Amino acid sequence: MKIVTTLSDLRADRQLLSGSVGFVPTMGFLHSGHISLVEAAKNECAGVVASIFVNPTQFGPNEDLANYPRDLPHDLALLETAGVDLVWTPTVEVMYPTGFQTWVQVEKLTQRLEGEVRPGHFRGVTTVVAKLFNAVGPDRAYFGQKDAQQAAVVRRMTRDLDFPVEIVVCPTLREPDGLAMSSRNTYLNSEQRRAATILFRALSAAKSAYDSGERGAEKLRELVSAAVAAEPLAKLQYVSCSDYDSLEELVSVSGKAMISMAVFMGKTRLIDNFVIGG
Amino acid sequence: MKIVTTLSDLRADRQLLSGSVGFVPTMGFLHSGHISLVEAAKNECAGVVASIFVNPTQFGPNEDLANYPRDLPHDLALLETAGVDLVWTPTVEVMYPTGFQTWVQVEKLTQRLEGEVRPGHFRGVTTVVAKLFNAVGPDRAYFGQKDAQQAAVVRRMTRDLDFPVEIVVCPTLREPDGLAMSSRNTYLNSEQRRAATILFRALSAAKSAYDSGERGAEKLRELVSAAVAAEPLAKLQYVSCSDYDSLEELVSVSGKAMISMAVFMGKTRLIDNFVIGG
Repeated sequence: MKIVTTLSDLRADRQLLSGSVGFVPTMGFLHSGHISLVEAAKNECAGVVASIFVNPTQFGPNEDLANYPRDLPHDLALLETAGVDLVWTPTVEVMYPTGFQTWVQVEKLTQRLEGEVRPGHFRGVTTVVAKLFNAVGPDRAYFGQKDAQQAAVVRRMTRDLDFPVEIVVCPTLREPDGLAMSSRNTYLNSEQRRAATILFRALSAAKSAYDSGERGAEKLRELVSAAVAAEPLAKLQYVSCSDYDSLEELVSVSGKAMISMAVFMGKTRLIDNFVIGG
Repeated sequence: MKIVTTLSDLRADRQLLSGSVGFVPTMGFLHSGHISLVEAAKNECAGVVASIFVNPTQFGPNEDLANYPRDLPHDLALLETAGVDLVWTPTVEVMYPTGFQTWVQVEKLTQRLEGEVRPGHFRGVTTVVAKLFNAVGPDRAYFGQKDAQQAAVVRRMTRDLDFPVEIVVCPTLREPDGLAMSSRNTYLNSEQRRAATILFRALSAAKSAYDSGERGAEKLRELVSAAVAAEPLAKLQYVSCSDYDSLEELVSVSGKAMISMAVFMGKTRLIDNFVIGG
């Protein structure tokens, strides 16, 4: 496994990979969810490139950029074991040199949910993903369903700007008790960690109702809200029952849809979602 | 020469080109200036792709989109004669399908000069150029110095977003009387056409002063303004003496700089520039 930090080294080593290339962009502090993306890429592509970059432009001024967890040696060991060919670990100065002033913005899809409560977040995401696509030149790029709106926004950007990249969205990996794997779970104290299963339990309640025939989107949202209200350590930020692609809020569920939510456990913000229908 | 209108045909025929590929993006109604870009690409690359697309998103609501001159058969004949391998002529529906909502924006460089008097213009330019780069996958792309700010903005976008494309800027081609070649020259009536040499004459006056040792940017701007004021058919929109790369207005000229201007001849807006110093 080769590790490169400059763009010229990346381009040179990328040229040495023959056949299709799968790409797994990450912010590091890797867990099994990330590794499942690498495994999907390994299965589908001749070569696999991963990136580790905590992208400052997708964090808001009051968010957790400075404290975002990092462990590069552990990350590299996991990627090597998973069979990654090339890892791109640029510095902030490489990605955003003095004079940087170009942004990629998806408009409508970013106005709601995460985009509404984290203004500027998706502008940072799409800009860095566009840069990573241009730097790496992958045939396929792998994203997790846990960040469902991110996946939808990246799909839209890729299609709108004609990037020659296929976006593959892989299932959310969960801890045995149902908590979606996330680098941010490390922020939770043990009490919060136990209570954090509320996201999975709330979504499961809504999913059960859907499976039993409930199609009213407001009813499904209410089931999530009610479940979270019963957990004293959790504070619901939003719950949504939206179309899977447009992310527009639904009145009733007919096609492929998504129930998604954000919850504060103390200062730690967690998100999760279930895909239903379709 | 192959002519393609769908993205899938473009990608398929692009794959057939081996070696380095030069790309000449145009809005059609081609003149010798465009052909000089093709010739530069032919000299430097194994294959040449051109595009013809009148990009609606770079026209303002009160600009000349509907009347922009078009002559596809003539354009294709010129490109074939010049030795282009592949021409991409997408429709507006191919480039901006329903649901399109992603924009590429260069911030600081687009605030002044053309960007100031044509709000949104450069957002349309950078978005379509990003799409064309992703669709064509060129090694080098060729732009004319006549649209100097466009060239600077595209250079900035390419660097900021890590597009693996070298931007080549070619000299402005001029009519025998000095008028910079432009598809929009066709809008001029014969009287305006004669008077339109004022841009070249005004820039030449400033250049002569520079060559004689004048380094005061305001003095150089005044020479341009005074020359235009003496031409009753011309109305100056702006004159600038700026740094070549940052486009920041100068007090005195030391390094590579640019004197640029926009003039209305009746309803027709013409731009031109001279590079000095450096």
